[in-house]
This record gives sequence, C-alpha cells and structure tokens, in this order.
Amino acid sequence: MLSQSTIKKIRSLHKKKFRKDFGEFIVEGSKIVEELMNSDYEVVSLYSTESYPGGIQITEKELKKISALQTPNKLLAVVKMPSFALDSAKSALILDGVRDPGNLGTIIRLADWYGIEQVVCSTDAAECFNPKVVQASMGSLFRIKVAYTDLKTYLSSSGLKTYAAVMDGEESAARMKNFNLIMGSESHGIRDGLDGVADHRITIAKKGAAESLNVGVATGILLDRLTVIS
Amino acid sequence: MLSQSTIKKIRSLHKKKFRKDFGEFIVEGSKIVEELMNSDYEVVSLYSTESYPGGIQITEKELKKISALQTPNKLLAVVKMPSFALDSAKSALILDGVRDPGNLGTIIRLADWYGIEQVVCSTDAAECFNPKVVQASMGSLFRIKVAYTDLKTYLSSSGLKTYAAVMDGEESAARMKNFNLIMGSESHGIRDGLDGVADHRITIAKKGAAESLNVGVATGILLDRLTVIS
Repeated sequence: MLSQSTIKKIRSLHKKKFRKDFGEFIVEGSKIVEELMNSDYEVVSLYSTESYPGGIQITEKELKKISALQTPNKLLAVVKMPSFALDSAKSALILDGVRDPGNLGTIIRLADWYGIEQVVCSTDAAECFNPKVVQASMGSLFRIKVAYTDLKTYLSSSGLKTYAAVMDGEESAARMKNFNLIMGSESHGIRDGLDGVADHRITIAKKGAAESLNVGVATGILLDRLTVIS
Repeated sequence: MLSQSTIKKIRSLHKKKFRKDFGEFIVEGSKIVEELMNSDYEVVSLYSTESYPGGIQITEKELKKISALQTPNKLLAVVKMPSFALDSAKSALILDGVRDPGNLGTIIRLADWYGIEQVVCSTDAAECFNPKVVQASMGSLFRIKVAYTDLKTYLSSSGLKTYAAVMDGEESAARMKNFNLIMGSESHGIRDGLDGVADHRITIAKKGAAESLNVGVATGILLDRLTVIS
C-alpha cells in the first residue's frame, strides 16, 4: 500500500516546481516505461498494477491517485533527471519559444526518427519533463539530449552550418551530415534577431491558402529536406 | 436570451448523430468564424458575446452553455454541411482509418497549405465536422473538400498516379501536378491490400531509433516530396 506521503510526493511531480526541486519526473504506460528500461535513465521507483520485476505492486485505485494521465496504464516510474553535456559539433534542433508540450514531444520524436541527437531550447520553451511532453515523445525523450540555454550563445560556439526556418527564405537546402536548424513558434516565429546568426534562411512555400503550418509538421518537413539520404 | 430549446439543439450538435440528423455543425472562435465568413459555407445562425453584424448577441454564460470548447471565444456559428462532388482527375489525399480528430485537422490544414483540394477518407475515419477537427483545421476545412467513401472504388475511378505510404517502399518520388497519396493510421497502416492499387510505394526512411512518425507529420513530409516546386 502507498503511504500518504508517497502519494503526495509523486503527485507533486506533476508540477514543474517540484520536478525541479526533487530533480525527478514521472514516466507512465507500459510501452514508454519499456523504452525507459532500455535507456540509461535512472529509475528511482516503479509502481505497477501487475506483478513486474523490481516494481512495487499497487491497486488501480492507487495508480489513479498518482497518475497524470486521464486513463492510467499499468506502470508509473519515478525517474531521475539526467545530466549530460551538449556537443556543438553535432546536429541540433534549436527551438525558440516552442511552448506547446505536444509540439515539443512531436519534435523530440522527429529528432529521434531523423537521427538528430540534440534538441536545444530557449529557456521559455515547454519543459521536456512535463508529463505531456514525456507521453507525446513516445519514449524518444530517453534517446535525445534536450537542454535549455541561451540560443545565441550555443550557436556562437557551434561551427556547423545553421539554417533558420522563416517565411521569406529559400525553398531548397543542401543535405548535410551535421547542421543546426532553428525553429520558432507558430505565433511569434524566430525572435530577437536569432535568424541573423543563421547561414541560410529556408522556407516551406505555400501553394494553397492555409495561414500557417504546425511547428511539429514544419520541423518534420525541413528535417526531411536537410538530412542525408541513406 | 437563448431559449432552452435553442441551447439543447446547439448542444446536440456536439454529437455526431445529431450533426448527421440536422445536417449542421458548429464553428467557434473569432479567427475560424472569420475564415468561415469568407467561404461559401451557409451559416444558419451566429451567436456572439459582442455586437457582430448579423449575429445574435449572447452572454459569456450562454456561450459557455452552447460551446464545445474548454475556453469559449466570442463567436459560435451553426453551419450547414456542404454538398459537393469529388473530381478524381484532381489531386487527393486518401486517408485509410485515420481516427484521431487532431490528426485529421492537421492533415486538412496541410492539404490547404500544399494546394491539394480533396481529402478522401474511409468511412471509419474521424468525422470532419467533429468540433475538434474543425478547430484543428484552423479554417482550412472551408477550403478543402473532405468526403467519406469506399477508397478502392474512388481510386479505381481515378486515372492519376497513386502513391502509398508504407514501411518498405522507395525513398524518392517524382514531383507531379496531380496525384493521389494514400496514408494509413499509425497503428494499422494501410489496410485491406489498398496499397496494392498504388503505382508507387514510398517510405520515410528512419535514420534514428523512433518507432513511428505521427501520421500528420508523415503526410506533411510526403506532400513536400511530391508537390511541384513553384
């Protein structure tokens, strides 16, 4: 049985402030927890409604109490936030002000699909340990380095070609093994002249009438144009 | 003031059964209603919390009662479902079993961005007049013909080159002015041998480790490969 203090502690991890204080976050669901187990992430504790190796067995009712999901699914892990160093000589997605957790999750999954190991976010972007991001990334979060820093400083330390997604750039782009790609939010685009740091400005030309593209979709399209065909 | 029967009728349009019975659906929010007003769609009635030409003024509380949104936004229109004929000589996105409303909305918006005028869905796909689809399509719904029919029959009547998105196809595709592109759902792919009807099988090759791509993102990437660069 779960103690009240355990329930309270895990529930507190639904909130960013407490995730930061504890340096921990939660991961839920059979499929994503399985991906977690195959990663280098350190699991602090694991709760399961079925018998599970190394897991603490709990009831459905208890899972509901600690879960951040509307429909809890068997497993919930409390996980230590990782620490790692970025390598500015390797490809990175640079996200300026992407605040929607679902979009960040989609973008992390895309990075993982296209073999981009790093996602570098402005400090006001959605937090990658938000339960919505963890779920939307479908386990890709455990394979990708997601960091928050000053983007201009990061880019100035990188010798790679940098592309910026803008409304008035070129359609075509050279495919290359390592590059930076800067994406802004749908509402504000790339801010503070950050696109001025880029070597190339690229655009997804509109052939129809839609006003904008979702930032996750746009990131996918541009990664597909930039990455080397195997 | 709104009568109880009006409130009841509009609320019933949150449900597919009643949308079908009345042949009407709802559209909400200043921005999307504005796009609606610029379209050929027939508005049955319009409710607004502010003075609006041709609109019935209501209170915030009344809007909350008839809205399908968590955060209602000024305007709600009751709209007649359109009738139109498909043209199988023009490009179409062919969606097999895409059940998630958010994904369908994203795909309609993508069709509108890339100038594809038709989205042809299997009869079990998400319904395009579902409030979640209407909102996710960001007004693009009013410019795109979305229809539900037997996909094999539709494709057999089309003389266009047909591409099918599969896991084991070719990476490259010829750009062309008119084509059909078949997309399946993330979980089931293209069903019932429908991909056998296609002239070409195309694939977004995985360079990293993610298990799958979101169907909206995958549709964007493939449209970007297939459409003619202006």
